Amino acid sequence: MSQVVEVIGKQFGRWLSAVGPEAGIVLSSRIRLARNLLNAVFAHKGSAEEQGTVVNVVKSAVERSAALHDMSFIDMTRLDPLETRFLMERYAISKEMATGTGERALMLNGDQTVSLMINEEDHVRIQSLQSGLMLQEAWRLANAVDDELGKRLDFAFSGIWGYLTACPTNMGTGLRASVMIHLPALIMTRRIASAVQGVSRVGCTVRGLHGEGTEMLGDFFQVSNQATLGQDEEELIANVERVSGELISQEKRAREVLLGENERQMHDRVGRALGILKGARILGLEETMSLLSALRLGVCLGLVSEYSVGRINELMIQVQPAHLTVRAGHDLDPLEIDSLRADIAQKSFSSR
Amino acid sequence: MSQVVEVIGKQFGRWLSAVGPEAGIVLSSRIRLARNLLNAVFAHKGSAEEQGTVVNVVKSAVERSAALHDMSFIDMTRLDPLETRFLMERYAISKEMATGTGERALMLNGDQTVSLMINEEDHVRIQSLQSGLMLQEAWRLANAVDDELGKRLDFAFSGIWGYLTACPTNMGTGLRASVMIHLPALIMTRRIASAVQGVSRVGCTVRGLHGEGTEMLGDFFQVSNQATLGQDEEELIANVERVSGELISQEKRAREVLLGENERQMHDRVGRALGILKGARILGLEETMSLLSALRLGVCLGLVSEYSVGRINELMIQVQPAHLTVRAGHDLDPLEIDSLRADIAQKSFSSR
Repeated sequence: MSQVVEVIGKQFGRWLSAVGPEAGIVLSSRIRLARNLLNAVFAHKGSAEEQGTVVNVVKSAVERSAALHDMSFIDMTRLDPLETRFLMERYAISKEMATGTGERALMLNGDQTVSLMINEEDHVRIQSLQSGLMLQEAWRLANAVDDELGKRLDFAFSGIWGYLTACPTNMGTGLRASVMIHLPALIMTRRIASAVQGVSRVGCTVRGLHGEGTEMLGDFFQVSNQATLGQDEEELIANVERVSGELISQEKRAREVLLGENERQMHDRVGRALGILKGARILGLEETMSLLSALRLGVCLGLVSEYSVGRINELMIQVQPAHLTVRAGHDLDPLEIDSLRADIAQKSFSSR
Repeated sequence: MSQVVEVIGKQFGRWLSAVGPEAGIVLSSRIRLARNLLNAVFAHKGSAEEQGTVVNVVKSAVERSAALHDMSFIDMTRLDPLETRFLMERYAISKEMATGTGERALMLNGDQTVSLMINEEDHVRIQSLQSGLMLQEAWRLANAVDDELGKRLDFAFSGIWGYLTACPTNMGTGLRASVMIHLPALIMTRRIASAVQGVSRVGCTVRGLHGEGTEMLGDFFQVSNQATLGQDEEELIANVERVSGELISQEKRAREVLLGENERQMHDRVGRALGILKGARILGLEETMSLLSALRLGVCLGLVSEYSVGRINELMIQVQPAHLTVRAGHDLDPLEIDSLRADIAQKSFSSR
């Protein structure tokens, strides 16, 4: 286990702690900025040497900035598949970064709220993650990192097109504002399809937890802006904020309806979820996420009082396969994975 | 609530207490003898007056017998549908008695191990119920009651045909020996079909809990002799005993296989059942019986230690609809029934 991954592994990012606004419905807010160096070919076109140069140039720029002093450097080429998967389960790196090849690196600050991916799709992806609906704070942080780096790096920028990116869909601001949102009541009341359609009509997209092409687990969705140009950063962020606010309102109404019309059923759903989490000895990932989703809803509705949303957020990460394997300290077969997951659930909930 | 039903309701029959041999697999053993009076038309052919005379004649014969002094008399025509259903849930009366019309009565001894149904299908049905595999003891008791009644009543008996009964399938001995047997492991290992086929080949039938045409719940089956004539009582009983013994052996082997090859899965199944019984706030009858069946298996296999088979046997009765309604003291709609059932399950298991 790489030393840096080990350090990160010991503590969850502050963004998981459910301290932000609307944390009962919004897991986290993220701002990502795509940047490329003026005098280097795009990452996927570069030779290993050219890619290595980009990594070194960016790393050095970060290290020379006093404001970015607490960022650790992780050379992705030195990680084994388990460590890579572990970082992805933490949302520290993207799926593309995890599955990619070539010289690439991650830089991450102490409380895991700011990270840089070097040579993911673009030379630099600046990312800030915050708890709850906190796009403004995430934007403030990402923007500050961008300004710091901009002092020492020449980013490819066109007066007409804005920031140039490896994929044209990121051109302009290079900004992706996204909100991870928990919508179990909209699913239970079968209003999710029309809610998602509404989102698409106003320039936003809805995806799975790890972005494009990933599955939705535990009733979580990722809402983000579709276009990255034609509007400035503040306008793009305001739109995602507005759309998220609308989804939050709809989810709240649905929760009220469920509690008002079917209180016993809601208690039943939450009680069964907790009963299975405590009693099962084998738990698959999908089922566990769905049980944790029901429990999270129950905690938010005040139907269960012994557990916190923050703890459930952390468990959603701890029950992922790479986290389980790291915890065991050796490779696990599928039954062992599901058994350890059940052991952790039992320990987490039984003693209360 | 009729006073007698109320008294019965306060205490479960001794046959439920799981004290008999093989009580981990065999819920109970029952002997039933069909008898008809020589000088009266069969029950279904009789007028109300003729039926009433039969009830009085049998009642009076019981009351004049010192050996049968502790038998209470319950006039079925005075019971409302709830009380009737309650007695059926206790296995004190048959489905046919519960749904029948006309003058009819039940007589029941103190510990509910001996009963008489008057004007069920036949004028008299003598029944003895025992815990575990105890057909011999049940036969001894039923036979003693038959002898007692025979002293004061003339039963219709032909030297060629034996005891004459309303339905020819009961003619001869009028005896039905049946064993209520719990076969969850044979179901889980998919061996139940061949086991049941084997039973049919040797003169026995397999039915649901309340006899012919009733559903199987909670992995329980009723095994009984098919023919009532051509063999004497001891031979008929020995055959049911032998067949039950064979099923018990098969179930034991299946339980060993499950525990040996899939111990974690067995713990999982039992743990989930217990978790849902503790956590659910709405429980349907079928699901509850299936959960109690899994828990009963878990207790028998030593996977759970806090609960007793006898208590689970009682719960299987307590969660039935009429028992729930009597407990509530007023009519319940379906959701209230399922809610009260969940409340009882929670109370029964949560405090341990």
